[in-house]
Amino acid sequence: MEEPLEIRLGGQSISVTMRTPGNDFELAAGFLFTEGIIQNVAQIREIRWSHLDNANPRQTGNSVTVELNPGVEIDLQRLQRHFYTTSSCGVCGKASIEAVLQAAQANSCPMPARNSPVLEPGVIHQLPEALRRAHAAALFSPDGTLQLLREDVGRHNAVDKLIGAELLEGHLPLGDGLMFVSSRASFELVQKAVMAGVPILAAVGAPSSLAIETAQRFQMTLLGFVRDCRFNIYSGASRIQ
Amino acid sequence: MEEPLEIRLGGQSISVTMRTPGNDFELAAGFLFTEGIIQNVAQIREIRWSHLDNANPRQTGNSVTVELNPGVEIDLQRLQRHFYTTSSCGVCGKASIEAVLQAAQANSCPMPARNSPVLEPGVIHQLPEALRRAHAAALFSPDGTLQLLREDVGRHNAVDKLIGAELLEGHLPLGDGLMFVSSRASFELVQKAVMAGVPILAAVGAPSSLAIETAQRFQMTLLGFVRDCRFNIYSGASRIQ
Repeated sequence: MEEPLEIRLGGQSISVTMRTPGNDFELAAGFLFTEGIIQNVAQIREIRWSHLDNANPRQTGNSVTVELNPGVEIDLQRLQRHFYTTSSCGVCGKASIEAVLQAAQANSCPMPARNSPVLEPGVIHQLPEALRRAHAAALFSPDGTLQLLREDVGRHNAVDKLIGAELLEGHLPLGDGLMFVSSRASFELVQKAVMAGVPILAAVGAPSSLAIETAQRFQMTLLGFVRDCRFNIYSGASRIQ
Repeated sequence: MEEPLEIRLGGQSISVTMRTPGNDFELAAGFLFTEGIIQNVAQIREIRWSHLDNANPRQTGNSVTVELNPGVEIDLQRLQRHFYTTSSCGVCGKASIEAVLQAAQANSCPMPARNSPVLEPGVIHQLPEALRRAHAAALFSPDGTLQLLREDVGRHNAVDKLIGAELLEGHLPLGDGLMFVSSRASFELVQKAVMAGVPILAAVGAPSSLAIETAQRFQMTLLGFVRDCRFNIYSGASRIQ
């Protein structure tokens, strides 16, 4: 299933994304958080379905309105282009990483300790079994217990749903969790994981050069090609036993 | 490899996308065309690397400037949100499809005839062999000859590079080609194929509901799960022998 979802902030439409319907409030909250528009759950007053004029039946449920609390200042300029590039810092991978650092600090997101948590390789080997469906993202505890799973036609949406759910539950930052994605590890997925304080990101597919560089900068453990009882460690080996 | 690419239109930065470096002029041209910002190659005066102040070595080659010919009017509003949703037409799959129809008509992109080209199933079976790499998009002739292949960390970028290359060569619309993507078939991939007049879109993975609906609306042949000498036909069966 795929339908557009409009995200409104107050009365203003700020984004339309194609997504798999379901967990849409989580998606809206997670998007605002991982894109650096909001910094914490306390800024959110309400999330509700938009009351649209002349809405047709198919449209119902395709627009979410997020109301922020009075006095919360936001920078919508971030949305015009992605926040990880600005004209002042230049357009390159290093500048993108520095922008993530600023956003993570604004989100009061501390870097996890280098050797916490520490996982047994056997826990990693079992991950693919739990995530057979395409374009899913899941959180696991260090002993390999599945905590939360979200799916979407877009891999970034699946991660936003996951992080949004944890944000709304007051569970951020995710200091001792492992995030597993059924895709490749791109810069944007690492960036979103950084924003949520995820110490370990594991992917079924390959990581990009910039994903590795970003993970190293944030002391994040990055695992790729997690399948067939093998995996590669690209960053943060001290968290693997 | 992954680095940001900034696309500038004249002096204005209009997009930053994470991409695999290479074929960046094609990516810029394809992006502008498939997003409905420009309608044909004659509108482009020049594509060049941006001359940036205080550029560092890593930044060089991460910003492309497209100059349009005098008198070409463009609607940058399209970029604020994706063009396939506007507040007037509502937020739903049907409205998104109608927006694509308008954009395709603006691009003088005729719908291909229902029974042209007609392919033998054996041609389809051979496609995966030619496209072993992840996140690639390729054009084939009706007899299965590989015409052009582009890769990118983002599947939509690979398609934009492919379509941009054909746009710059004056080959659009692609009335008798087959496009094959090493991913699932999302609405956005079908939408981009529609803009380029592609009659047949084949994907290694599953199509979304909205991808199928869009293909049907445009008389496009949509094939999914093209692998292991099997495939499913979701739309436009008259083009398969």
